[in-house]
Amino acid sequence: MTAIHRVVIIGGGFGGLYAAQALKRAPVRITVVDRRNFHLFQPLLYQVATGGLSPGEIASPLRGVLNRQRNTAVLLAEVIDLDPAAYRVVFSDGEIEYDTLIVAAGATHHYFGHAEWAPLAPGLKTIEDATEIRRRILWAFEAAEREVDPERRAAWLTFVIIGAGPTGVELAGALSEIATHTLARDFRTINPSDARIILIEGAARALPPYSPALSAKAAAALERIGVQLRTGALVTAITPESVTVRAGERSESIATRTVLWAAGVQASPLGNIIAAKTGAQLDRVGRVIVETDCSVPGHPEILVIGDLAHFRHQGGTPLPGVAPVAMQQGRYVAQAIRRRLAGRSVGPFHYRDKGSMAVIGRRAAVAKLAGIEFNGTLAWLAWLFIHLMYLVEFDNRVLVLIQWAWNYLTWNRGARLITGESPLPLDR
Amino acid sequence: MTAIHRVVIIGGGFGGLYAAQALKRAPVRITVVDRRNFHLFQPLLYQVATGGLSPGEIASPLRGVLNRQRNTAVLLAEVIDLDPAAYRVVFSDGEIEYDTLIVAAGATHHYFGHAEWAPLAPGLKTIEDATEIRRRILWAFEAAEREVDPERRAAWLTFVIIGAGPTGVELAGALSEIATHTLARDFRTINPSDARIILIEGAARALPPYSPALSAKAAAALERIGVQLRTGALVTAITPESVTVRAGERSESIATRTVLWAAGVQASPLGNIIAAKTGAQLDRVGRVIVETDCSVPGHPEILVIGDLAHFRHQGGTPLPGVAPVAMQQGRYVAQAIRRRLAGRSVGPFHYRDKGSMAVIGRRAAVAKLAGIEFNGTLAWLAWLFIHLMYLVEFDNRVLVLIQWAWNYLTWNRGARLITGESPLPLDR
Repeated sequence: MTAIHRVVIIGGGFGGLYAAQALKRAPVRITVVDRRNFHLFQPLLYQVATGGLSPGEIASPLRGVLNRQRNTAVLLAEVIDLDPAAYRVVFSDGEIEYDTLIVAAGATHHYFGHAEWAPLAPGLKTIEDATEIRRRILWAFEAAEREVDPERRAAWLTFVIIGAGPTGVELAGALSEIATHTLARDFRTINPSDARIILIEGAARALPPYSPALSAKAAAALERIGVQLRTGALVTAITPESVTVRAGERSESIATRTVLWAAGVQASPLGNIIAAKTGAQLDRVGRVIVETDCSVPGHPEILVIGDLAHFRHQGGTPLPGVAPVAMQQGRYVAQAIRRRLAGRSVGPFHYRDKGSMAVIGRRAAVAKLAGIEFNGTLAWLAWLFIHLMYLVEFDNRVLVLIQWAWNYLTWNRGARLITGESPLPLDR
Repeated sequence: MTAIHRVVIIGGGFGGLYAAQALKRAPVRITVVDRRNFHLFQPLLYQVATGGLSPGEIASPLRGVLNRQRNTAVLLAEVIDLDPAAYRVVFSDGEIEYDTLIVAAGATHHYFGHAEWAPLAPGLKTIEDATEIRRRILWAFEAAEREVDPERRAAWLTFVIIGAGPTGVELAGALSEIATHTLARDFRTINPSDARIILIEGAARALPPYSPALSAKAAAALERIGVQLRTGALVTAITPESVTVRAGERSESIATRTVLWAAGVQASPLGNIIAAKTGAQLDRVGRVIVETDCSVPGHPEILVIGDLAHFRHQGGTPLPGVAPVAMQQGRYVAQAIRRRLAGRSVGPFHYRDKGSMAVIGRRAAVAKLAGIEFNGTLAWLAWLFIHLMYLVEFDNRVLVLIQWAWNYLTWNRGARLITGESPLPLDR
């Protein structure tokens, strides 16, 4: 009697979790490995970063989500190496063997060769990123309230977001809502709506992956809420008190104390390990170039999905690192495993692009769904609904719905706490 | 025309916040100063520590709570000194003058001369305390799941809580619920209900401030849910892998990786500053001994309330450091300020003890309200209701109610995330 087929899944994000859930009734034993004990709904991280939601509302403990799958175990561990010849994954403090390995380790921030910018301009990939950004944003208003010098006060009230993709646009919109409405009555010396929000984008338009028409609608919505959008602009320097931006020939230094990074991601370092141990090729941002069935060339038992994978077999350009791609690839590789175990053949992965959306502010969003582009209130409602439905746990949906209803009715963003080590001194 | 009377309130907890709110229509200008930007509902911290609630559900941004009071400003600042002769409070980065000063800076942990125990046995006073305890509790189960050696595994599954006052009892009860129900299906190697929870108390019975009858009821409830209560036991040593307990002549070393401190508090260091600058006397835990009107002797313009105050004018023993005392003192000093400004006399503070409660587990609590002692489901419902009603913000009440209903129906504690720096490596 052959031993049961062991599937090890590295990563409990969209790719790994959807793969695990799709294998629920398969004749396999699954182990999901993650460095964190929860699945994170990344599309709503910007809401935690701007005090609209609490971390607990967008994160679901992996054990809780998977505990009814009797064939699935969860391990909290950090992967430091692979041994494909021995079908083994190596942890910092142990190891595990597999018959099929699904690597869904995701992505991290990319500072384009300027790693020194990381502490100055935090990105938005983890819960801790989000609460740190929240801390800096709220801190800036507190510092402005106590600052006597007008120039230094203006710098505290200037916020620069680098990157006008969906993350940057959504951050800018939420930040504008905070400044203009949520905090409106909270201060006595400053007027929070004096805050300047500057959104910097290297490409010619905001939301570069979207159509020009949607980019234009988004730009108009941003302008309406007072966000200064600067396209064709590249950041050349970041200091604790300024950002230098180059547009064409001109260079400009913006005095600011709060800079947020939404400009680029690179693959998890596991990509390097995979390349080193299997000979797989990586792209410029470290993603593993995979076959049509998401496998590593020469290793049909190693599947790479989600933000870590470079899948180029559909339309010539690689699939973007977005949640729906990871979800569909997760389901696909689960299906592939089941078919192979049943002795059946497996077709190539085919991504069904059901559309994309970005929200700019209340009742202002852009969306392309089922091939139709639209914006405004309808897009905004679609955005709310779809994000709500994709939250993994039912209680999260209820809590987020309550929070959003409250935020909407009261302009209040209840989750705006400054937490963490040493919130003082003011001269950070 | 005389300048408007300036009231400075140090601390946005129960004492400071209730004082500020009670001065809403008084002819004064109020400044509330706190090192944190939120009011924390401390009685429910143990729920954050055991994953039942998220930080945002028990914390309310001070500016949001007070923003409709036009006579009130909020400052985020740290007080480092007082200058009573000049009617001045000194911050780490500024200063402010007052006509009346209300000091409501609260308390911090007391390790009875063993400051080295602090990192080994975290207490429960701040949000960060709570998330750290949560991290350690969930971590212990993760570590146990991966531990091969049975003795080491048993140590990971042994939890020691030092101090069987209301905080310790409530922590023990919630921890038992986690182990026995919430995590029941989450692990594959260990059985979480194998966890041992040991509650250590130096006095002769649990809940020493309560009546012997209620103490007995609480002890019985603890026993029913599997908590080992050891009274008349003093902790003499804490290491990363053990706790040494002395009961009478015998000393015992308990192998444990998770120790929680609920055994004592001392006053904020501001007490020392007040004593140094005014000549006020302090008690053994650093509280300022105040007059019948909560003022510092010789300084009718400096009022000390809440956990920082030692008020001994009622019944011979000082009032306990509990929320209702701070709330009533806050309202009292506000009233006193208003009466004085109107040229009227002020009577002494009189605390109305409306009762006390502690919850042990679902449908198990002890309570004494309106002079009547009761326990069981009725006490539990009373506990829920009263805590819910005293939450400062309406949206917090709704969110907590939803969370509690969910937790009750599903045994699920949704907020059980391991967050914070470097959750790994396992050998912490």
